[in-house]
Amino acid sequence: MALKFTVPGLDEAASEKIISILQNRLSQEQEAALVLKHAHWNVTGPNFIAVHEMIDPEVEAVLAQADETAERIATLGGSPDGRPDAIIRNRSWKGIDLTGRHSTESFLKALVEYYDSFIADDRKAIAELDELDVISSNIVQDHVQELEKFQWFMRSHLV
Amino acid sequence: MALKFTVPGLDEAASEKIISILQNRLSQEQEAALVLKHAHWNVTGPNFIAVHEMIDPEVEAVLAQADETAERIATLGGSPDGRPDAIIRNRSWKGIDLTGRHSTESFLKALVEYYDSFIADDRKAIAELDELDVISSNIVQDHVQELEKFQWFMRSHLV
Amino acid sequence: MALKFTVPGLDEAASEKIISILQNRLSQEQEAALVLKHAHWNVTGPNFIAVHEMIDPEVEAVLAQADETAERIATLGGSPDGRPDAIIRNRSWKGIDLTGRHSTESFLKALVEYYDSFIADDRKAIAELDELDVISSNIVQDHVQELEKFQWFMRSHLV
Amino acid sequence: MALKFTVPGLDEAASEKIISILQNRLSQEQEAALVLKHAHWNVTGPNFIAVHEMIDPEVEAVLAQADETAERIATLGGSPDGRPDAIIRNRSWKGIDLTGRHSTESFLKALVEYYDSFIADDRKAIAELDELDVISSNIVQDHVQELEKFQWFMRSHLV
Amino acid sequence: MALKFTVPGLDEAASEKIISILQNRLSQEQEAALVLKHAHWNVTGPNFIAVHEMIDPEVEAVLAQADETAERIATLGGSPDGRPDAIIRNRSWKGIDLTGRHSTESFLKALVEYYDSFIADDRKAIAELDELDVISSNIVQDHVQELEKFQWFMRSHLV
Amino acid sequence: MALKFTVPGLDEAASEKIISILQNRLSQEQEAALVLKHAHWNVTGPNFIAVHEMIDPEVEAVLAQADETAERIATLGGSPDGRPDAIIRNRSWKGIDLTGRHSTESFLKALVEYYDSFIADDRKAIAELDELDVISSNIVQDHVQELEKFQWFMRSHLV
Amino acid sequence: MALKFTVPGLDEAASEKIISILQNRLSQEQEAALVLKHAHWNVTGPNFIAVHEMIDPEVEAVLAQADETAERIATLGGSPDGRPDAIIRNRSWKGIDLTGRHSTESFLKALVEYYDSFIADDRKAIAELDELDVISSNIVQDHVQELEKFQWFMRSHLV
Amino acid sequence: MALKFTVPGLDEAASEKIISILQNRLSQEQEAALVLKHAHWNVTGPNFIAVHEMIDPEVEAVLAQADETAERIATLGGSPDGRPDAIIRNRSWKGIDLTGRHSTESFLKALVEYYDSFIADDRKAIAELDELDVISSNIVQDHVQELEKFQWFMRSHLV
Amino acid sequence: MALKFTVPGLDEAASEKIISILQNRLSQEQEAALVLKHAHWNVTGPNFIAVHEMIDPEVEAVLAQADETAERIATLGGSPDGRPDAIIRNRSWKGIDLTGRHSTESFLKALVEYYDSFIADDRKAIAELDELDVISSNIVQDHVQELEKFQWFMRSHLV
Amino acid sequence: MALKFTVPGLDEAASEKIISILQNRLSQEQEAALVLKHAHWNVTGPNFIAVHEMIDPEVEAVLAQADETAERIATLGGSPDGRPDAIIRNRSWKGIDLTGRHSTESFLKALVEYYDSFIADDRKAIAELDELDVISSNIVQDHVQELEKFQWFMRSHLV
Amino acid sequence: MALKFTVPGLDEAASEKIISILQNRLSQEQEAALVLKHAHWNVTGPNFIAVHEMIDPEVEAVLAQADETAERIATLGGSPDGRPDAIIRNRSWKGIDLTGRHSTESFLKALVEYYDSFIADDRKAIAELDELDVISSNIVQDHVQELEKFQWFMRSHLV
Amino acid sequence: MALKFTVPGLDEAASEKIISILQNRLSQEQEAALVLKHAHWNVTGPNFIAVHEMIDPEVEAVLAQADETAERIATLGGSPDGRPDAIIRNRSWKGIDLTGRHSTESFLKALVEYYDSFIADDRKAIAELDELDVISSNIVQDHVQELEKFQWFMRSHLV
Repeated sequence: MALKFTVPGLDEAASEKIISILQNRLSQEQEAALVLKHAHWNVTGPNFIAVHEMIDPEVEAVLAQADETAERIATLGGSPDGRPDAIIRNRSWKGIDLTGRHSTESFLKALVEYYDSFIADDRKAIAELDELDVISSNIVQDHVQELEKFQWFMRSHLV
Repeated sequence: MALKFTVPGLDEAASEKIISILQNRLSQEQEAALVLKHAHWNVTGPNFIAVHEMIDPEVEAVLAQADETAERIATLGGSPDGRPDAIIRNRSWKGIDLTGRHSTESFLKALVEYYDSFIADDRKAIAELDELDVISSNIVQDHVQELEKFQWFMRSHLV
Repeated sequence: MALKFTVPGLDEAASEKIISILQNRLSQEQEAALVLKHAHWNVTGPNFIAVHEMIDPEVEAVLAQADETAERIATLGGSPDGRPDAIIRNRSWKGIDLTGRHSTESFLKALVEYYDSFIADDRKAIAELDELDVISSNIVQDHVQELEKFQWFMRSHLV
Repeated sequence: MALKFTVPGLDEAASEKIISILQNRLSQEQEAALVLKHAHWNVTGPNFIAVHEMIDPEVEAVLAQADETAERIATLGGSPDGRPDAIIRNRSWKGIDLTGRHSTESFLKALVEYYDSFIADDRKAIAELDELDVISSNIVQDHVQELEKFQWFMRSHLV
Repeated sequence: MALKFTVPGLDEAASEKIISILQNRLSQEQEAALVLKHAHWNVTGPNFIAVHEMIDPEVEAVLAQADETAERIATLGGSPDGRPDAIIRNRSWKGIDLTGRHSTESFLKALVEYYDSFIADDRKAIAELDELDVISSNIVQDHVQELEKFQWFMRSHLV
Repeated sequence: MALKFTVPGLDEAASEKIISILQNRLSQEQEAALVLKHAHWNVTGPNFIAVHEMIDPEVEAVLAQADETAERIATLGGSPDGRPDAIIRNRSWKGIDLTGRHSTESFLKALVEYYDSFIADDRKAIAELDELDVISSNIVQDHVQELEKFQWFMRSHLV
Repeated sequence: MALKFTVPGLDEAASEKIISILQNRLSQEQEAALVLKHAHWNVTGPNFIAVHEMIDPEVEAVLAQADETAERIATLGGSPDGRPDAIIRNRSWKGIDLTGRHSTESFLKALVEYYDSFIADDRKAIAELDELDVISSNIVQDHVQELEKFQWFMRSHLV
Repeated sequence: MALKFTVPGLDEAASEKIISILQNRLSQEQEAALVLKHAHWNVTGPNFIAVHEMIDPEVEAVLAQADETAERIATLGGSPDGRPDAIIRNRSWKGIDLTGRHSTESFLKALVEYYDSFIADDRKAIAELDELDVISSNIVQDHVQELEKFQWFMRSHLV
Repeated sequence: MALKFTVPGLDEAASEKIISILQNRLSQEQEAALVLKHAHWNVTGPNFIAVHEMIDPEVEAVLAQADETAERIATLGGSPDGRPDAIIRNRSWKGIDLTGRHSTESFLKALVEYYDSFIADDRKAIAELDELDVISSNIVQDHVQELEKFQWFMRSHLV
Repeated sequence: MALKFTVPGLDEAASEKIISILQNRLSQEQEAALVLKHAHWNVTGPNFIAVHEMIDPEVEAVLAQADETAERIATLGGSPDGRPDAIIRNRSWKGIDLTGRHSTESFLKALVEYYDSFIADDRKAIAELDELDVISSNIVQDHVQELEKFQWFMRSHLV
Repeated sequence: MALKFTVPGLDEAASEKIISILQNRLSQEQEAALVLKHAHWNVTGPNFIAVHEMIDPEVEAVLAQADETAERIATLGGSPDGRPDAIIRNRSWKGIDLTGRHSTESFLKALVEYYDSFIADDRKAIAELDELDVISSNIVQDHVQELEKFQWFMRSHLV
Repeated sequence: MALKFTVPGLDEAASEKIISILQNRLSQEQEAALVLKHAHWNVTGPNFIAVHEMIDPEVEAVLAQADETAERIATLGGSPDGRPDAIIRNRSWKGIDLTGRHSTESFLKALVEYYDSFIADDRKAIAELDELDVISSNIVQDHVQELEKFQWFMRSHLV
């Protein structure tokens, strides 16, 4: 589908490459919000309330990231796909396997691993976007700073 | 998986039935949040900003509904599944087919239809829950009141 | 006038009955807001300021009730009539006769009496709505809880 | 009924004239709040949400005008009549005929016309009050400034 | 003591039954606020701060429940007894035996047990109130939803 | 003392007349704040708390009036005298004689009388300022509107 | 029970004396919160709303006092007992005898009397604490300042 | 260009005169916002931060004045021109000559002079508007009160 | 005039001595609020805005001190005199002589001197109150801490 | 004019180049604020209120951009010129030709075009600043992200 | 260095002694803020987030204590030294030895020990200040109350 | 000490280099907060209050910078050292020599000089970090923008 418009100064080919990179990131950001809530509801053990409450601001953060990513796609003339089917279709990373209730430790371990690939893919996206559009790259850079800090929070429980 | 506990006054069999009903509602509430954002990003036309902004408080509302539903499942001793895979697996209703950008009218029509089955399934859940647990039924009743009001908002654009 | 739509799961006949019940309640809720303000401006005597200030949050409350009732009518496919003529036309209860300034005691007595029929009619509506639509019934139940509490406030001055 | 008091510096005859002018304005301000809500609930069409939301702050504005007008009457030693019957009795202007749901355009046209006489009567009241009491005149002048601005909002949709 | 008034539509006999049920609930709600604070001050161990802080909003919640229950009694024409003597006199349930400082785990276990009977008695009250007055029943239903959720919070630490 | 400057468009003679009128009003506004607090502290009787609390927002109001009046004097090139000695020196009206504690009724009567001359003098000032400077007149007009409303509050207790 | 720790600079014997004094004050502060609410719900008469509302901030105040007292006990290495049984056991003062609804005057008289012994016991505690620990004494001094002011509020109604 | 509408009670000729007066004031209000910011950025010297911060609320004030003036033009059926070209075209007053950084004293002197003509022109507009439309005159009167007060602020630095 | 009551634990003779000390402090606190405003309006020079704005929070502070002092007098069974005549009558200290506009430096010098006696008299009052009533002494101690800090602010301009 | 200072680590020649680039951007940012307000006041048609309200936060955004740009110039030792004359003098882009009232569609089309050159020039500035000073470049990058998003808002109405 | 001024009623010799005591406390309060942040960043283990978050309000508290102490020194005519060198120079207590990441338990143990000497030194300061200046003593007393409460928080984790 | 983890995509060697650079910046940011407070307390002269107040938000800013820097070190697997000893040990720049009270001018000059090396070292860090980790570099870039702006504030006083 040819773009009807894109941002001033970018050509259509570049825009389409950026859109494709960002759509992949959007799907993971949307999944992350779901997966973090999944942990929020299913953690158990003596640190329940502390970990339960630590997760909610991070859910807000990744929901805001998804919104920013999707609106950047739209700004570039693309059409972000935000349905759950898109998450499944775009999922090139490993999800969270933990079904049912588990200790805070188990969930934090699983999430730290999930964040490993989440951040690695975001950093790969930054490298590609740097060649294409500094504004789009800036957006993902800000997301990575937040994600890495939250990964530290989680890791600090496991040290 | 046997429940470790449930709320005082309910037996395990009843709790498991309620959990099963609520898990289905949770998946649709989570999907609704994704689908509404999908529309939020992809609507176009002369009423863009008004409809774009009308959707965001409803996203907040269905996210809060999902949180309330999932925490009720956990309260009853169950384990809510909040991952995108659960949405796909539990989807017994028709999703939103609109791919790409479309007019506000097209998206509102599609969402009104989506809400038809969303509300019908919630009302069916209320009927079943009334026999099992008034508190769980109250929760879904409050969700329906909100959903029906938002459906009126959308319908009023199409009259 | 045939309804263009109604909420999923209700038929047109039921919806029209509910709408008719709610329109009657809407008119009294609107009148109550006017009548409470009438008292707010015309009370006198040593308890003036306390009673004058006690009334304003209740005015806010009944205005919010009217808004909720009217939007429920619209949600059900009806058309709420909010003009003063509709209040007069639908008035099946006795209004407030006090013209001019009067003591706080006189106004509170008159309002307690007014609330007697207001609440009685709301409770009758609940009984009818319970057969038709639990959501509409819930709305009026919440209104009654508020009205009965405010009636206690007023009665406590007169004991 | 002889006034028990009036504001320092005004005689009783002047006060009664002012009270009579203001009571007429009070009734229209109260009706305007009802009529605007009537539109708020019954507008339909592609601009539904934008017009629906534009009306609510204006309802707040005219309710505040009515409160200010009524309390000025009381300050002058009069007794404001705020019941719906007084609106009907004092109605020397044409109300809103639109029954049922109508397009935003139809309702805005009807309201623009309603504001024509509302503002004209307020301006006439200002002319009369200027001879009697500058404070009362100031109050109505502020109301007119607000009403004329809202009329511009509505007219801008119809140009 | 004969009631001086009750809410419109209820007779005195029904009101007295409701009042008696609600007074019992009031006493337990008041005790719960005291008992939760007792735990708030005396918990120790590595999860001290998390559990200490988790309790305070629940104290606010049960204090608000007690206020709502007592004002419903008054609304029905009764006279709520809020003194500590009434708590002791009405106590048909087992209190909290833990004297002195104890681990968060010990206190959470004791409180979970206390909530078992608290909730069971509230649910019994709902069953009785359903026959007598839907408004009073609604009030207790809302209390139960909150109490059951907090019990889940506590249980999640102990799984 | 010759003025160093005045506002553009006014000559020095007019400015000095305005300053002289406003200084008199400033002294009474400052005294009113002191006198209202005097009543706030010394009222007694069954309406104590209601009248005690009613006075504080009026103290805020007259303090704000004094600030506005004094800054208008300074704007016109004058030097407002805000010390207690200036209040005594400029006092051409009768103060409040009530020493010691008195009933709310006694204090309200005394204050209503005090406001009679306060408002009368403000209205005289408006008449004079209308010939000299519309901006200064507007300021006092707004003060009168507030004072007359508060006088109504007080009178309503005594009717 | 030997203390595990106390604050730096105090020995165990002194700490135990302070704890014993403060536990007595804690029980009365907790009772006062219950007793004030008891009055809040049961006052009647023409000043109902004013007195009803005056009590609530004082309830907040004594609840905060109880929290501060209990946490000081814990800081000193003690274990505050916050259960209703402790209130009864520690009650060396006379409670409130008023059962059922009574006039604002009756309740204020009873509360003024209750505050007489409440404040006298607090002042006795200050005298003892001054010899033991200035910080604990400061805490009770601040409580007395608040209690004495509220007693003035109540007395002003009765003068 | 013939007006499509104007406010009720004014004829087209009067409206056009008012619009022309207000357009001139709009251009100066817009320029004032730019000129004040120019000073805000370029002042230097030992009073830098105090003067730098004093200017920002005044920028907000004149921007709000411009908005109110422009919307009054639109309300009267006119079309306000808000582009920089209109400022230059309508400039019948002397701008600010200070290029580059200068002391707070130099900038305050220049701004005091600028306000001399700003206020004088506003007062001239009031005189003309008084004959045409009291509402428009009121708007400019309020602007003058604010401008004169700020001029006093500036002058007080230079005395 | 014999006191009708005083706080529990103080005798009438002590209370009267405290009341007499506090009335003197009340008069100076009230004067200080007037005198600070006098400076607020009349300072000039290059530091105008900074000093003008520094004074207002201190005015709020001394007004709050006066309120606390007066309500302590009332709590002790006395009757605070808050009228300007009482300030003049009780003035045993030297007022502020500066008439007309003066530099910030001149006003700060005069106020620093005024605070010298203000604080010295407050400290003398503390010494006397320490023998009579620790609560009253605490109140004045808190006032002195605030006054001394503000005196440092003023002195820092003059060093 | 030689710079008196610049930021540590930049030489004067580089600073002057940056200043010159930023002054050009400042002028357009200031014009954009004026031009957006011009549209805000003059749009008409069925989407009036939605578009009217959408513009105001963008005005706030570009005013904040201008402030940030100007203060960066000053930080670098330059002197930003914020007067309307500087806008005209620096205008190397095409302004908005629409005079008088026009449909929302016409204004949005004109503004989209205006933003084309606005963004293109900002992106050119980024490319030049990247060689000179990363901090200045970051500032403009953030501006572009905001501008491009708002352009998408506007374009979405026109698709 | 001779003092230029001190507070009214204190002589220079006393002031210098107080200043010297307070400077020592200031240095420890400043160090405490650094040391608490050091722990905030380096704690690890299953209670990471709870302890990490518990520390931040205490950092705010000791920063506010340092500000109050330093401003008291300045008020007394002294010159507080707030540089890190002063902390080292004045350090008569043992710092925190923990380098690198450690468990929450290790850090809490180290901090409890640190607070032992912190509080002991503050209490010693109170004893000395009581002889010199009650206001300065009050300030440190308030600090101790806060520090002791936080020490209890920390100890409760270790019991 | 080998790192236990670092952020995804960075190796341990790079992480250690980044950590070492950031620890140096952390120490200066912490010192800057102390040094700015030192000035805040010790400035004197006619601009005291303006400069005193200008410093506090900058203290907040550098405290937030230190927090962000330290948490980035921890995120990278390092252990930030936040104790005063680390400031002294890492201090490769010249501190502030001003002991005792000095004029605002003297302190601003000393701070401008301090910021020269602060900013120069931050810019050097950016250059090094650009090769190692864009996220860490972004963090310091944001700090520099803030620091340079505050340096302009200070310089503007000295021009």
